[in-house]
Amino acid sequence: MQKNKCYEGEQRIYQITSSFLNGKTKFGIFLPPAALQGEQCSTLFYLAGLTCTEETFAIKAHAQRLAAQLNLILITPDTSPRGDDVAQGDHWDIGQGASFYINATQAPWKAHYQMESYLIDELYTLIQTEFPAHPDQIGIMGHSMGGHGALTLAFKYPEKFKSVSAFAPICEPSQCPWGEKAFSNYLGNDQSVWKSHDATALIRQKGMLFKDILIDQGLDDQFLSQLHPDQFEQACEAAQQPLSLRKHAGYDHGYYFIQSFMDDHLQFHAVQLEHA
Amino acid sequence: MQKNKCYEGEQRIYQITSSFLNGKTKFGIFLPPAALQGEQCSTLFYLAGLTCTEETFAIKAHAQRLAAQLNLILITPDTSPRGDDVAQGDHWDIGQGASFYINATQAPWKAHYQMESYLIDELYTLIQTEFPAHPDQIGIMGHSMGGHGALTLAFKYPEKFKSVSAFAPICEPSQCPWGEKAFSNYLGNDQSVWKSHDATALIRQKGMLFKDILIDQGLDDQFLSQLHPDQFEQACEAAQQPLSLRKHAGYDHGYYFIQSFMDDHLQFHAVQLEHA
Repeated sequence: MQKNKCYEGEQRIYQITSSFLNGKTKFGIFLPPAALQGEQCSTLFYLAGLTCTEETFAIKAHAQRLAAQLNLILITPDTSPRGDDVAQGDHWDIGQGASFYINATQAPWKAHYQMESYLIDELYTLIQTEFPAHPDQIGIMGHSMGGHGALTLAFKYPEKFKSVSAFAPICEPSQCPWGEKAFSNYLGNDQSVWKSHDATALIRQKGMLFKDILIDQGLDDQFLSQLHPDQFEQACEAAQQPLSLRKHAGYDHGYYFIQSFMDDHLQFHAVQLEHA
Repeated sequence: MQKNKCYEGEQRIYQITSSFLNGKTKFGIFLPPAALQGEQCSTLFYLAGLTCTEETFAIKAHAQRLAAQLNLILITPDTSPRGDDVAQGDHWDIGQGASFYINATQAPWKAHYQMESYLIDELYTLIQTEFPAHPDQIGIMGHSMGGHGALTLAFKYPEKFKSVSAFAPICEPSQCPWGEKAFSNYLGNDQSVWKSHDATALIRQKGMLFKDILIDQGLDDQFLSQLHPDQFEQACEAAQQPLSLRKHAGYDHGYYFIQSFMDDHLQFHAVQLEHA
């Protein structure tokens, strides 16, 4: 375990063995001062984007200062299974660093790429047994591929996640090149299966589940054509799912954008979880 | 030039040709919103530590949020000359990434390692001609090797730097292994020359020059034995140089420590420079 004191809390990195991922995996956790003293705290999962690791958020997202003030625990899993025995992709948008947070059904991926089960049935439980995470106050957020992960997991497991937000999420992966490549590899070519892992399709199917959803999107995002925020907005309107979709002139897809609006997301979750 | 919008300001990386470094070099600059609108702003140089680059601060120090609010321009030079024709060291504590911010007089270093002249006679001027830096409100700070750089340059050029602070600085390089290795390589074995590049010796020689100096030091710093904050404190006392040396239980040498106290340093400089 790596441990660094930070804003009177602790930023830690753990390595654990995951039965679902069939190997070792790492996750980051920021424990605010209150959590170090054993106080139950609201907890946020953050799912990172393509190529990132469990450490990216801790270094680049600039969230610890306010999380320490708001008594928020921050959990950052890796973006995929890792290791020499884990299938590699042909490019950074597939394979290691690019799990899309789903359970693969296709070879060679299915042997390790069981990220949905790892997150929901393994890490989620571990966080509650090993750390003072308030069981009724757990939210989820993410960026890009991780924004897709946050939105889909929130709509698949609303009993587990009481608040959800995203930065520049892949809102409709079944209709964009990144998602088409990932889903056809991990899930096969039956596109009806893809729909249950597509936030825009899920909202249409499940209807309103959250009081609000916060999404920030930069308008100079170099990957905007992959993200489809407007389709997601239309689906939310049709489902009467409240959505705060904020578009920001001049901001791109990276962590300088994310850090600029991180405080708003932490505040959003703190308020939603307090009233959960 | 790389440019990313950040807190309504811009984080940029420039590459320039330096006559003193005898080659290309990069620096980072954060321009707060006021500077983008042409308003003259207080400006802070930040000198990074061993192995870092011009980008480390921008990613890891978490300074942009408050700098945007305080209208501070932040300048982050690289930690040494770079390139295939630039002498390499045998380890990460010497050579590229480890200039110690001085002018080397010894071969093979002297061909490129002229960081003091680059900073003072080249970059300092460029910042004032190309950006809206208020000429009378420029301060300097740094970390570890860069803390040594900040303290020594402030005491060498008090007409240029009106405020100074440091995180875990190498306070007495002529008396610690890192400094002894660097100074003997870059300056040769005449230790009387070393004294003019040693903050503790400089304070003894020059006396009180600043209203205050802010230094933060973690007490779990894995390199504490190299840093000699107590010797620096004694020299300040003898010179009647006010010093705010804060020691923090549990904090180590890295950027999780730096980010925890970054806001205090920005506030410190903003106040000092406003009254400069």
